[in-house]
Amino acid sequence: MMKTRLTTILVFFFVTGIAQEKDSVMLSKIHEEILLRGECYDNLRYLCKGIGQRLAGSESAAKAISWGKKTLEEIQPDSVYLMPVEVPHWTRGKHESGTYSAMAEDGQLKPVSVALTALGGSVGTGGTITAEVVEVKSFEELQALGEERVKGKIVFFNKAMDAALINTGAAYGGAYPIRGKGPSEAAKYGAVACLIRSLTLADDNYPHTGATQYEEGVVRIPAAALSAVASRQLSKDLKANPGLKFNLELSCEAFPRTMQANVIAEIRGTAFPDEYITIGGHLDSWDIGEGAHDDGAGIVQSIEVLRAFRALGYQPRHTIRIVLFINEEFGNDGGQTYARCAKEQDEIHVAAIESDAGGFSPVGFECDLNDHQYELLKSWSGLFDPYNLLRLRRGGSGVDIRPLKGGRIALFGLSVEGQRYFDYHHSNNDIFENVNKRELELGAAAMASLAYMLDQTGIPSEK
Amino acid sequence: MMKTRLTTILVFFFVTGIAQEKDSVMLSKIHEEILLRGECYDNLRYLCKGIGQRLAGSESAAKAISWGKKTLEEIQPDSVYLMPVEVPHWTRGKHESGTYSAMAEDGQLKPVSVALTALGGSVGTGGTITAEVVEVKSFEELQALGEERVKGKIVFFNKAMDAALINTGAAYGGAYPIRGKGPSEAAKYGAVACLIRSLTLADDNYPHTGATQYEEGVVRIPAAALSAVASRQLSKDLKANPGLKFNLELSCEAFPRTMQANVIAEIRGTAFPDEYITIGGHLDSWDIGEGAHDDGAGIVQSIEVLRAFRALGYQPRHTIRIVLFINEEFGNDGGQTYARCAKEQDEIHVAAIESDAGGFSPVGFECDLNDHQYELLKSWSGLFDPYNLLRLRRGGSGVDIRPLKGGRIALFGLSVEGQRYFDYHHSNNDIFENVNKRELELGAAAMASLAYMLDQTGIPSEK
Repeated sequence: MMKTRLTTILVFFFVTGIAQEKDSVMLSKIHEEILLRGECYDNLRYLCKGIGQRLAGSESAAKAISWGKKTLEEIQPDSVYLMPVEVPHWTRGKHESGTYSAMAEDGQLKPVSVALTALGGSVGTGGTITAEVVEVKSFEELQALGEERVKGKIVFFNKAMDAALINTGAAYGGAYPIRGKGPSEAAKYGAVACLIRSLTLADDNYPHTGATQYEEGVVRIPAAALSAVASRQLSKDLKANPGLKFNLELSCEAFPRTMQANVIAEIRGTAFPDEYITIGGHLDSWDIGEGAHDDGAGIVQSIEVLRAFRALGYQPRHTIRIVLFINEEFGNDGGQTYARCAKEQDEIHVAAIESDAGGFSPVGFECDLNDHQYELLKSWSGLFDPYNLLRLRRGGSGVDIRPLKGGRIALFGLSVEGQRYFDYHHSNNDIFENVNKRELELGAAAMASLAYMLDQTGIPSEK
Repeated sequence: MMKTRLTTILVFFFVTGIAQEKDSVMLSKIHEEILLRGECYDNLRYLCKGIGQRLAGSESAAKAISWGKKTLEEIQPDSVYLMPVEVPHWTRGKHESGTYSAMAEDGQLKPVSVALTALGGSVGTGGTITAEVVEVKSFEELQALGEERVKGKIVFFNKAMDAALINTGAAYGGAYPIRGKGPSEAAKYGAVACLIRSLTLADDNYPHTGATQYEEGVVRIPAAALSAVASRQLSKDLKANPGLKFNLELSCEAFPRTMQANVIAEIRGTAFPDEYITIGGHLDSWDIGEGAHDDGAGIVQSIEVLRAFRALGYQPRHTIRIVLFINEEFGNDGGQTYARCAKEQDEIHVAAIESDAGGFSPVGFECDLNDHQYELLKSWSGLFDPYNLLRLRRGGSGVDIRPLKGGRIALFGLSVEGQRYFDYHHSNNDIFENVNKRELELGAAAMASLAYMLDQTGIPSEK
């Protein structure tokens, strides 16, 4: 009995040892391939500089879809195709400006021009709106002011992200409701427009856009984000002159919804062709900056996973799908459509990996897993350790892949060292130059490493 | 017996639990203080923009010493003083240039001006040296060429750092001997000058300097580093025209050694005033760029630890010394002098923490510890985890504190996410704008957190 057990244990360690050695070699090859011969950085340059900003519904997004399809086809997977997705169509228009007159130190009125940008989905001002400004920090303060002191005015939500939080995503989450709900809340008290402080941790003059959501049945008022610097200045000027008149012009326009597409490439699995591992990011970006970190990085990293597998001659056991999702930013249409199609086709999705936290150095994975899957992931930490993938935390995954949730699927988001992320996010500062080549490549290699391990090991269901 | 043991165990966990809770609260306070009211970023701005580059022996380094003393005094520790240190005095001079003529695509000779900079300590060219260039990748290739093919020529070591290595410090270490020994090795075969490819992982046009060490008894030949782009271009032009003549001018000069100083601030310990915990970085930098990451960051972070302790009213049990070391870059005089003085005074040094890996997001600590100390450090990982200080690896610590090694002392280097470090290191690209405020502050908070834990817990000797 003892002998048998010992033999069993030795065989187990021997087999496990060989497997770990083989996996360790493959992870090393993946990293070498991507760090020495990677194409993701050049792809990102083209996506940012050759195509640029690509809001869903725009011509530029259509160009990005064509580029994505062509780029994936050049890698020669088994198939590349488009999945039609209905997306909104909204334009910022040519004019956006905010001005007012403030008292200078010499007692003279001086004109101030504010760095601002319309929130995504905002209605236009139809000419210029001129009104007094009431500053609040929260919905509670707004409520306390009441209709009497808000009606006919512009509400200015001057709430900064909490810099004391280590997790910048949590700091973003804390300020996010103001961008999403602020305009409708202000409108309920009769405000004529809404300004917010940009959601950023940087103290600079870039305004940051992002989607706002109007509440059904509430008057839609124009809404814009001021830069951190402009917010501080306006707050100061309001203290000196509470009656100052703010002139706001936004020429945003909404058009009927239109058809665009997710871009999908497949390598068929040798052992489990009907079981899918999805790897992706979102191809759309906001319409300012170049969408370099958000989420050009995730797109070129996903493509790089496919390229590296091909270059290394790796034949996956499961079917691998690279998905360039359309419209994460403004309704998550790509992710929802993909999950709906998967359900309609009775597809078996076993895992999905998303990169949408910026092209920074990878530090691990955020994961949405059952206990068995999490144990499996943790058992790989020795393999991931040499690549500094030490943070294996349960929690989120990615907006595009989340609709796949349910049943057996294991969901992963690439976790990165993202202290700088919100300095760039949704602003003119999110450009190619602010992405580091090695950091981007290491992220792609981390995704390929995880995809390889999931593909080799298989993904356990609950019990 | 059982009951007693159980009680003991329960008391232990209760006491440990209270201690951990108290420590956890303090670490949170430290982070909040530094992230919300930190002064290190403004201090770095002044050190970089108000003083700038500060090579040991220069007037600018003298200004930095005065600034460091004044800045520490403003925090009102128990004492601030200067420790005299003898340092070298070398200047780059006004001229450095490299030119040659290369065949353009139209068949015409075109003049090429190369981005280069003298290596630290290089002799000057005394006018212009004009000679043919032999390109090699290693000392072995140089040896294989031999005196016959090297004599009278300029040796060009065109060896890149290994981009496949995940640890950029290891990649630097692999290419480092060429910068240190290359000129003397080339001189042994009769070379008249030496060029090296800059030690960087970026593909750009910044040349990177750094110390070279001439071997005793070998002719000292001028030495310079070419940017990555210039190195690739020269290599290509040499293939097309192996006989091209390279013109090198360097007006470097060496002067007699001179006196500068380490700047030291102390808070006396309440329980162990004669046991020292040293926290520091190096105040000198190379004489190009602004020494922002290397090591302005470490300087302002060390000062910030003191400021945060004072702001929080923390009275350390051990004596805490903040040390701004002079001349790490060019002989480690500050670190050696500090350790020698400590020995001469029979001081008991129990721990030292250095930040000299750049002002990037902290990820943990590199440590030079005995087994007991390492176990202690690992027992704190639950406290460090919320701050992403997950990497607790044995190995290095810091150049300035290493001479303290021996006996009981525990040595720590702040470990950072440093994929970008060598893009900036020793070049005109190491400027304030390339340091992120939050990343810098988080590093300071990590150092303060570790210092607090070491101070509270005490540092075990071996056994």
